[in-house]
Amino acid sequence: MKTRVLVVGYGTIGKRVADAVRAQSDMELVGVCTPRPNANVLALLRRGEEVPLVAYDEESEEAFRRAGISTSGRLGELLSSGEVDVVVDASPGGAGAENKRRFYSQSGVRVVFQGGEEPGVAEVTFSPFFNYDVARGRRYVRVPSCNTTGILRVVNALLRVGPVEEVFIAIVRRAHDPADRKGARLNTVALDGGVPSHHARDVKLVVPVNITTVAVVAPTTLSHFHVARVRFAGGGVTREEVIEALSSAPRVVVVGEPFSATADLAEFFRELRPRGDMYEVAVLEQSVSVDGSSAVLAYVVHQESVVIPENIDAVRALASGVPPWESVRMTDSSLGVLSGRISLTAARAAPRPEVKVLA
Amino acid sequence: MKTRVLVVGYGTIGKRVADAVRAQSDMELVGVCTPRPNANVLALLRRGEEVPLVAYDEESEEAFRRAGISTSGRLGELLSSGEVDVVVDASPGGAGAENKRRFYSQSGVRVVFQGGEEPGVAEVTFSPFFNYDVARGRRYVRVPSCNTTGILRVVNALLRVGPVEEVFIAIVRRAHDPADRKGARLNTVALDGGVPSHHARDVKLVVPVNITTVAVVAPTTLSHFHVARVRFAGGGVTREEVIEALSSAPRVVVVGEPFSATADLAEFFRELRPRGDMYEVAVLEQSVSVDGSSAVLAYVVHQESVVIPENIDAVRALASGVPPWESVRMTDSSLGVLSGRISLTAARAAPRPEVKVLA
Repeated sequence: MKTRVLVVGYGTIGKRVADAVRAQSDMELVGVCTPRPNANVLALLRRGEEVPLVAYDEESEEAFRRAGISTSGRLGELLSSGEVDVVVDASPGGAGAENKRRFYSQSGVRVVFQGGEEPGVAEVTFSPFFNYDVARGRRYVRVPSCNTTGILRVVNALLRVGPVEEVFIAIVRRAHDPADRKGARLNTVALDGGVPSHHARDVKLVVPVNITTVAVVAPTTLSHFHVARVRFAGGGVTREEVIEALSSAPRVVVVGEPFSATADLAEFFRELRPRGDMYEVAVLEQSVSVDGSSAVLAYVVHQESVVIPENIDAVRALASGVPPWESVRMTDSSLGVLSGRISLTAARAAPRPEVKVLA
Repeated sequence: MKTRVLVVGYGTIGKRVADAVRAQSDMELVGVCTPRPNANVLALLRRGEEVPLVAYDEESEEAFRRAGISTSGRLGELLSSGEVDVVVDASPGGAGAENKRRFYSQSGVRVVFQGGEEPGVAEVTFSPFFNYDVARGRRYVRVPSCNTTGILRVVNALLRVGPVEEVFIAIVRRAHDPADRKGARLNTVALDGGVPSHHARDVKLVVPVNITTVAVVAPTTLSHFHVARVRFAGGGVTREEVIEALSSAPRVVVVGEPFSATADLAEFFRELRPRGDMYEVAVLEQSVSVDGSSAVLAYVVHQESVVIPENIDAVRALASGVPPWESVRMTDSSLGVLSGRISLTAARAAPRPEVKVLA
């Protein structure tokens, strides 16, 4: 039986989760719920897809009616009906906790929250690579933010090299999402929050690693950019080992020539996927440098899409009997998540159809 | 019999033209030709599509071989073989003229050049709305640049209101394409060239209209933004007439609530099309203002994709018996080019599948 999923919030994350749920053979998208019609709803209508729109409440229903858009019931009613197994709540930060009080706690529904919520909203802050089994069968889990999700994948990869003694990461955050205007700060780089930034705390909620993170905001919209220094417990680590660990880990790609910037990657993934989504953490090969027991690496984390695979795994952890590695395989195969190396020098390793020879 | 098209140059325009050619029922993409393997070629390989790669020359063939990528012959040979009816040359500005000297003039092939070439490279600077029949059966035509193409569509729309006496347009250009780094000038707005800018000249090559254009460069990457003032020959023009003319013209959309910025439109079209392409000129409804015989309007022109439909029409003008309006219809239907109005208040007019009512 398919897991019936409702997405609440239809912004940057919600619209992507909704599409990803539809790509899973073991899930059914019951609908999407959003307080007000917005440009994303308009795009959904234009795409002509069969996705029921669920009104948030009475006021919301009225707003949709004024725009001439049909809705199918209200959130509260739908949850009471027992026709939803899991809600993925992709509301703006803090609104998820409010939704929990107002709607979720009164029904038996299980909920995946996002990293914009405080950790206390859920029983587990989640990573399929570290604590999938802890999350199994719970009511509330939280997928940490894009930066934390990216760090957890890199830590998961580097643990293949050996025990990690210390991690330090300078996070150069994008200022805001591409379509936002509020918060735009052109021509400045600003410290974002205190030291350590909240990312270190979130990582430690998932895996006990000695980590410090500092975040600064740069005037870009495309992706976050991390500069990491990692000290391994043992010495004698080689650059080849580190690259091998990164390029054999799930949801991480090592990118070489001609990729060295967030914009290079954004343009490449525009060719490959709707919305130009980059589900993978992309490690810049030229940045990987190893000296004794310490490694330096720089990688790019796409703020809009990197958490989507983890959200899908979180749904499975809550409401299916699928084991963690099988869930990761199913998610990555359905979404076409890449791993390994991408570069012109490694082009021969890429899948290539038989070239039709011209006469 | 299908028109056999080769795309030379596989950058921003070339990759889009190649995909658009493949969407035409009366055209066949013979291949794409590019001097060197680049990230776009890598993406093409990853997409696993059956598009033959043609080497530019011997040196080019060697560069592909080093990257382990198979090619199918060289440009010169292929053109001599008579297996190409039309080349769409999407090389960087100026390289098209060089290709003409080196390759095209020695074969019988017909060629569509881009606006980055000087007008003299071709017999006709082209618009399907004004001079398709003049271009018919010629050897060389030139599709003018994105800004000029956008202006021509708006002029074509406004001529439905009545004779146009004068047009003045301030063009706020994007600084560079999303993946470029050369030419990036953050935190400055600069005059671009003289007054009038070359766009006025290019418009006049197509249609005899009294037009002045001034271009400035702003530090953005998403789209050009035009602010236009148009004086009609007769008085008594109404705002409703102007909006009606714009929203009933081909390849123009009038966008209302919640669209007022280039980024709003970029995000919306990311939902609708690969690469987030916006083939349409998007007029901001809230900008349209009419006073007696003068109208003001602001509109957005997507530099990467707006010329794609006109390139397809140019191929038909050169090498088919299809009449202009039929070509526009075929192009727009195959690419899903929109017209009319897009806004939340007009959402009821949008196509909407039957909503599945939840029990």
